[in-house]
Amino acid sequence: MKAEIVTIGDEILIGQITDTNSGWIAHELNNIGISVIQMTSIGDEHNKIINALNEASGRADVIITTGGLGPTKDDITKLAFCDFFKTPLIFDNESYANIERIFAERGYIMSETNRKQAEVPACCQPLLNINGTAPGMCFHKNGKIYFSLPGVPFEMKGLMTSHVIPMLRPLSNNVIIHKTILTNGVGESFLADKIKDWEENLPSGFKLAYLPQPGIVRLRLSAVGKSRESIQLEMDEQVRNLYSLVSEYIFGEDDDALEVIVGKLLNQLHLSLSTAESCTGGYVAHLITSVAGSSAYFKGSVVSYDNDVKISTLGVKNETINTYGAVSRETVIEMAEGVKRSLKTDCSIAISGIAGPDGGTPEKPVGTVWVAISTPFEKTIAKKFLFGDNRERNIRRSALAALDLLRKRLLLFQ
Amino acid sequence: MKAEIVTIGDEILIGQITDTNSGWIAHELNNIGISVIQMTSIGDEHNKIINALNEASGRADVIITTGGLGPTKDDITKLAFCDFFKTPLIFDNESYANIERIFAERGYIMSETNRKQAEVPACCQPLLNINGTAPGMCFHKNGKIYFSLPGVPFEMKGLMTSHVIPMLRPLSNNVIIHKTILTNGVGESFLADKIKDWEENLPSGFKLAYLPQPGIVRLRLSAVGKSRESIQLEMDEQVRNLYSLVSEYIFGEDDDALEVIVGKLLNQLHLSLSTAESCTGGYVAHLITSVAGSSAYFKGSVVSYDNDVKISTLGVKNETINTYGAVSRETVIEMAEGVKRSLKTDCSIAISGIAGPDGGTPEKPVGTVWVAISTPFEKTIAKKFLFGDNRERNIRRSALAALDLLRKRLLLFQ
Repeated sequence: MKAEIVTIGDEILIGQITDTNSGWIAHELNNIGISVIQMTSIGDEHNKIINALNEASGRADVIITTGGLGPTKDDITKLAFCDFFKTPLIFDNESYANIERIFAERGYIMSETNRKQAEVPACCQPLLNINGTAPGMCFHKNGKIYFSLPGVPFEMKGLMTSHVIPMLRPLSNNVIIHKTILTNGVGESFLADKIKDWEENLPSGFKLAYLPQPGIVRLRLSAVGKSRESIQLEMDEQVRNLYSLVSEYIFGEDDDALEVIVGKLLNQLHLSLSTAESCTGGYVAHLITSVAGSSAYFKGSVVSYDNDVKISTLGVKNETINTYGAVSRETVIEMAEGVKRSLKTDCSIAISGIAGPDGGTPEKPVGTVWVAISTPFEKTIAKKFLFGDNRERNIRRSALAALDLLRKRLLLFQ
Repeated sequence: MKAEIVTIGDEILIGQITDTNSGWIAHELNNIGISVIQMTSIGDEHNKIINALNEASGRADVIITTGGLGPTKDDITKLAFCDFFKTPLIFDNESYANIERIFAERGYIMSETNRKQAEVPACCQPLLNINGTAPGMCFHKNGKIYFSLPGVPFEMKGLMTSHVIPMLRPLSNNVIIHKTILTNGVGESFLADKIKDWEENLPSGFKLAYLPQPGIVRLRLSAVGKSRESIQLEMDEQVRNLYSLVSEYIFGEDDDALEVIVGKLLNQLHLSLSTAESCTGGYVAHLITSVAGSSAYFKGSVVSYDNDVKISTLGVKNETINTYGAVSRETVIEMAEGVKRSLKTDCSIAISGIAGPDGGTPEKPVGTVWVAISTPFEKTIAKKFLFGDNRERNIRRSALAALDLLRKRLLLFQ
């Protein structure tokens, strides 16, 4: 079963935004054994949409379009679909009720323009979009299936997960399974050297991909077969072998996020957490509180960007900063113990470093970061990291390193 | 003059990497007045490449392909071009000298596989790639121009800048200019209603696009003309008219970020800032500190996720929380004043809300957010917002709403 993805919107063609939707959709389709054979981006133009639909349906069984479903004049996808399927627009009550609900929740007044979003091509099956006002649409013609989804990634993903994938899964006759192993703190080429022999001897139908992100390398192992049973056992075996080679760098699997794993550990151990952040500027607290339910273990954070705040709010000693500097083992340990005391928590994370681009010295270059972890089980520990000279990546890598260090300490006492 | 971009490589189609090349190329072509009418991604397959070249040359004057020029056996773009142009591969001495130079510089031994990279289709003009071993290629046929570039972004960009743009610039007879206006706090359809008449009466060659993101709608006005002079004045005039209609929602232009604009205002006014965050969990502090140089005005933040921290560290009164609740005008004002006092800053932002998914009540549903702004110029103000029920978006929208509210108050006293 083959699919094509058509992205509709001038903003892609002028290079204003990067199309991340197509890659995400391709990944989801791959997961259920459907290959994507082409991705196409076109502008908000009637004839271009018709042509793209014609060409795509000549090659693929499934055609998924995104974009052009907004309430404004430049959003013309619905009319193009009407023309392609020779069908009029009709008013859909269920879609209208959804739009009403969204406006009521946000306390906005609905306009005539919004009412029009409830109109859909007569021959389509509207797909309820709980995250937005534009309904998704599904069409069938000559054995091909067409989906039209909004371009807003959040809405597109909701519809893919709730409607498109459940509709397509039973139609696919191949199974692709993936297992992703998440590592922190080592580079791609280091891992590649460590697992070289294993990778070269993978059975046929198995494929490894390295997916690096700042601070994290994901190793994705994929296997293709006629049934899940035929490949799952071999997959489990290969993953066990991979663990035996690089277990010390692995922090999770698949969609595990470090902040979720740490939260689960804290919950299990009935421990509370606070953070004291300098160079990460609240990013660790943000990651932790991005997890629903984090208020069960997270009490708060002191972002001590200024040294005065380290002293007044965290109780770091003036002389510690004067003697060792704000980016030092001594300061970061006092920060960790200070926030733990002040916010009355069992555990704490403290981070102080030089995110850049300025502030580096020969002894402490940009990218120097100290992390301290305090738990009820042992003396506060501290560790120094050297990251690169990119501010955004330093912040991200520091936060991940700190969360992973807390995870490792908690595991010792689980 | 119209262009199409064809990306060749399986890694895009399985969603493993995002195609950022096409957007970059489109942006460069736009700058010299060439519109991109379609982008296509296909796999490393001979027939797919031939088909894509046939289709693209039926629509566009310029066809740029990237990818498939590497030394390994899955890189088949060159052979496909030979087939498409009915021409054999020949050995190119200049390309070979470049490969030799690169291997010598890196201290590697050249293999037979690398030697083959110096072979190019006989009818092409090879383009010297100083950043890599694969030469770029230019072809002319039936009045159309074809470029084949490597997929490595760094090499592709080098060839675009040194060869492709200089070759195409004299052939283009159009100029395209863009202006993007950034709005916060109102929806796409609300804006569309407000500017309906203006939009409908835009001069010919002008086009408006709505580009929504969580909490932000970007309005991009594009104009095509024969020369920059002929359209720039009209563009300025149209942008002024747009401002007069929706100025209260506009916070910036083009690539402006709210956190950068707020930082500039604070610097200008010589004011320092702190934040007290509950539901945003440090995200406002993270946005502010993502800006290099923010330590000049940002002192720190207290993330008071737990009510005890609101009381002990921010000095919010116990009875305020008991009487009005943690998510209330009264509490958020005490938070703002508390953090300002405690961190000794001129200004502060405080946020308390229900990010969800749990914690909502009939009176205070998920998405209810109170923001307070304290400055030296006036009494602390507070404003209530109602966002939707998605945690991630609520956090983002709350943070943007708070930054925009601070921006508006500062502007009054600039």
